[in-house]
Amino acid sequence: MTAKPWYASVTDLDLRAFEAIVGPAYVRTDPLSLDKYGRDETEDLVFPPEVVVFPGSAEEVQAVVRYCYRRRIPVTPRAGGTGLSGGALPVLGGVVLSVERMNRILEIDDVNMMAVVEPGVVTADLQQAVEERGLFYPPDPASRFVCCIGGNVAENAGGPRALKYGVTRDYVYGLDVVLPNGRRLRTGGKLYKDVAGYDLTRLFVGSEGTLGVFTRIILRLIPKPAVQWTLLVPFDAWDGAFRALRGIFEARLLPAAVEFMDREAVVITAARTQRPFPHTDAAALLLIQLDGDDPAVVEGQALRVGEVCERAGARDVQVADTPARQEELWAFRRAVGEAVKKTSVYKEEDTVVPRDRLPDLLTTVRGLAQRYGFRAVCYGHAGDGNIHVNILKMGLTERTWREILPHATKELFEAVVALGGTITGEHGVGWVQRPYLPIALPSESLRLQRRLKRLFDPRGIMNPGKVFP
Amino acid sequence: MTAKPWYASVTDLDLRAFEAIVGPAYVRTDPLSLDKYGRDETEDLVFPPEVVVFPGSAEEVQAVVRYCYRRRIPVTPRAGGTGLSGGALPVLGGVVLSVERMNRILEIDDVNMMAVVEPGVVTADLQQAVEERGLFYPPDPASRFVCCIGGNVAENAGGPRALKYGVTRDYVYGLDVVLPNGRRLRTGGKLYKDVAGYDLTRLFVGSEGTLGVFTRIILRLIPKPAVQWTLLVPFDAWDGAFRALRGIFEARLLPAAVEFMDREAVVITAARTQRPFPHTDAAALLLIQLDGDDPAVVEGQALRVGEVCERAGARDVQVADTPARQEELWAFRRAVGEAVKKTSVYKEEDTVVPRDRLPDLLTTVRGLAQRYGFRAVCYGHAGDGNIHVNILKMGLTERTWREILPHATKELFEAVVALGGTITGEHGVGWVQRPYLPIALPSESLRLQRRLKRLFDPRGIMNPGKVFP
Repeated sequence: MTAKPWYASVTDLDLRAFEAIVGPAYVRTDPLSLDKYGRDETEDLVFPPEVVVFPGSAEEVQAVVRYCYRRRIPVTPRAGGTGLSGGALPVLGGVVLSVERMNRILEIDDVNMMAVVEPGVVTADLQQAVEERGLFYPPDPASRFVCCIGGNVAENAGGPRALKYGVTRDYVYGLDVVLPNGRRLRTGGKLYKDVAGYDLTRLFVGSEGTLGVFTRIILRLIPKPAVQWTLLVPFDAWDGAFRALRGIFEARLLPAAVEFMDREAVVITAARTQRPFPHTDAAALLLIQLDGDDPAVVEGQALRVGEVCERAGARDVQVADTPARQEELWAFRRAVGEAVKKTSVYKEEDTVVPRDRLPDLLTTVRGLAQRYGFRAVCYGHAGDGNIHVNILKMGLTERTWREILPHATKELFEAVVALGGTITGEHGVGWVQRPYLPIALPSESLRLQRRLKRLFDPRGIMNPGKVFP
Repeated sequence: MTAKPWYASVTDLDLRAFEAIVGPAYVRTDPLSLDKYGRDETEDLVFPPEVVVFPGSAEEVQAVVRYCYRRRIPVTPRAGGTGLSGGALPVLGGVVLSVERMNRILEIDDVNMMAVVEPGVVTADLQQAVEERGLFYPPDPASRFVCCIGGNVAENAGGPRALKYGVTRDYVYGLDVVLPNGRRLRTGGKLYKDVAGYDLTRLFVGSEGTLGVFTRIILRLIPKPAVQWTLLVPFDAWDGAFRALRGIFEARLLPAAVEFMDREAVVITAARTQRPFPHTDAAALLLIQLDGDDPAVVEGQALRVGEVCERAGARDVQVADTPARQEELWAFRRAVGEAVKKTSVYKEEDTVVPRDRLPDLLTTVRGLAQRYGFRAVCYGHAGDGNIHVNILKMGLTERTWREILPHATKELFEAVVALGGTITGEHGVGWVQRPYLPIALPSESLRLQRRLKRLFDPRGIMNPGKVFP
């Protein structure tokens, strides 16, 4: 292994150079900016950069990166700043390179069913623009009204609809990237098939800003489903919810989403959002989204899913078939993360297991909570086995909390991996999960990945301090 | 760049070592075997190996590769041997490592909707096994009755249904790989979401046997569509077929497949297969597959597609809604490749462009054929822009043929890339497209990919002589 690289601090001369590239208005060193761009949505972490630079074009991104490469200044790319693993935090200082000015939808191509966008486009804005034309961009992270496509690609963002439609990776067909050495690379295209050489496009997807900065992204679109229904299904015991989950797939049904909330998640969210929500006393809720092109077909699916749930012991099956009622349910679901955050100091673990192992995962969490004395809130994407386990400090002393957290996390992740799962399904490794990556990956994999990082970024300037332990 | 590696020849001592690993029955050096394993389905190429080794397990694969790594003997992995770019040909001699004994479907997991298979499983066998259980493995290369999953993963195989369902990459969720250094690596799992580290799984997909040997593959399955219909639509001019193609997507329809055959393809196939086929005098045929869960919905789609085609000038819209009649049409479509092969010495180019540029592609091909005097047969997956352009020698002299072929190919590929396409959609670069890869990829991409290859395979033993020019 090479020695840890040294980095240059940002000097006044560097600031002038950045101003010459992007214009003085787009280089910020004021305390408010440094504080804002030193945070994302990951717990209460703060790592202020030395400077925030806002390039307006691929050429400007290139010039900034090339400059930092020569000077060996850390560059941390940032889009919406909504990450949950600290991936956009400049933990070693240097430059935060914000792409938020690069927010144009360059093209929506009807015939090839592709969109071409800049990295700073807000995910929901793209979704609305394509849906107005009868097209659909499925990935739907909970933060989609504020997060950006560039960050979604860097993190390979998921969301509820990943169950039926796949994750961000499944929609990225081409990338323009500024590499850590400041050179530009174009991969892929508006091509459904492309096997000319290794698949660099998908190597960049999920690389968490460590291999380059995306400046242009080609995304596949599909026709918009005409009909969406949502079912709310409360259970008196977890077991019932997971029996229903199994039953749905055994019946060869594939909902767009099957979301899970435990009682803690529902109670906390109802209290914080002041939203009335039925069945807050249930042990578990499933929120099931069905979609398709024909109302009768979706209704038929809803009936079959309802029957499966009732056989599994559901207390009730509520059907929301109007957009307004559905949005109410989904807004509640999206509010869980924020409600947990406001309830207590906490740590969120983005566990994922094969979905038939979810009962084992939840039993493990319950056991850990009892043994260590923390409160656990479990919710997330049951359909694809991706459950966000939130560990809440609540009444624990600061000292106990700091003592138990690494142990509890490690035990949880070891159990997850033993169940055939891994330590992060959609949030990324970033800064906070780094120490735990060796639990998930064999040493041969880590060895290859470290060398891969070095191949793309020999000077280690691109989002340093991330992913690798 | 490092110097070209030297390789050891296979000695009697090496043969004894291989026999000790896999058993004497599974080490072959007889002329028939060397001839058979020196060929695939790529034109008339023959590169006999020095020995063919048939391991029966991951442990045996590992022992063979480790041995070859130490001795620096080339290893060319091979599954079904149906490749169309010479990817499985041992162009530098050494060992052909055939995985055909490793042909077990290890598990079909109903609840997680995943299959776990060995690399030697025939693609159609897996499809039949999962369809019997109401599940579906969509990728359908024309060779699916003889090709194997291991080769499909290595080549990122496509097929007609890629239009709606994606390519092999979209279904590979985990791999066991024996790396060129003889170490074993496990990636992914039965996980719909997994962002722990770089996406090595998809880096291996489409790597054409140059980064390792797959010994176990986890594939995602989906519920089997209940209904399939096929439409046969003849046109009096290409233009009409491509207008219809545009119209289908502008109407926000997404058929499972939209296949194209030009008149030459139809005439040659009808003559060779002696199958009666309607409309052999049409200028172009579209073969359109629709599928879904409900007969009425699929019928509605068929009506809409039919209307679009008629508006675009279709001569007729024939609907095949019985499995037998549909299979007749698809068998004809699958027979095109073989029929071309038997008609003349030929070269097949696996061009792909954004589908709205197909008219430009075919105009280019027509122009080249006139100028160079060869016969051109165009057919393939119009829905995803992937057209197989076959250049037939016919009456040209051997000398003229050898002279014009590289020029015509280069001109064709340059035109394809200028249209936003690339030189191979699903066949791979392998041996035959190597010289043309720089047309498709910028030098920065080639530089990174060469270094990536060296990172995984520092001694250059794994399928040497492939992909890179």
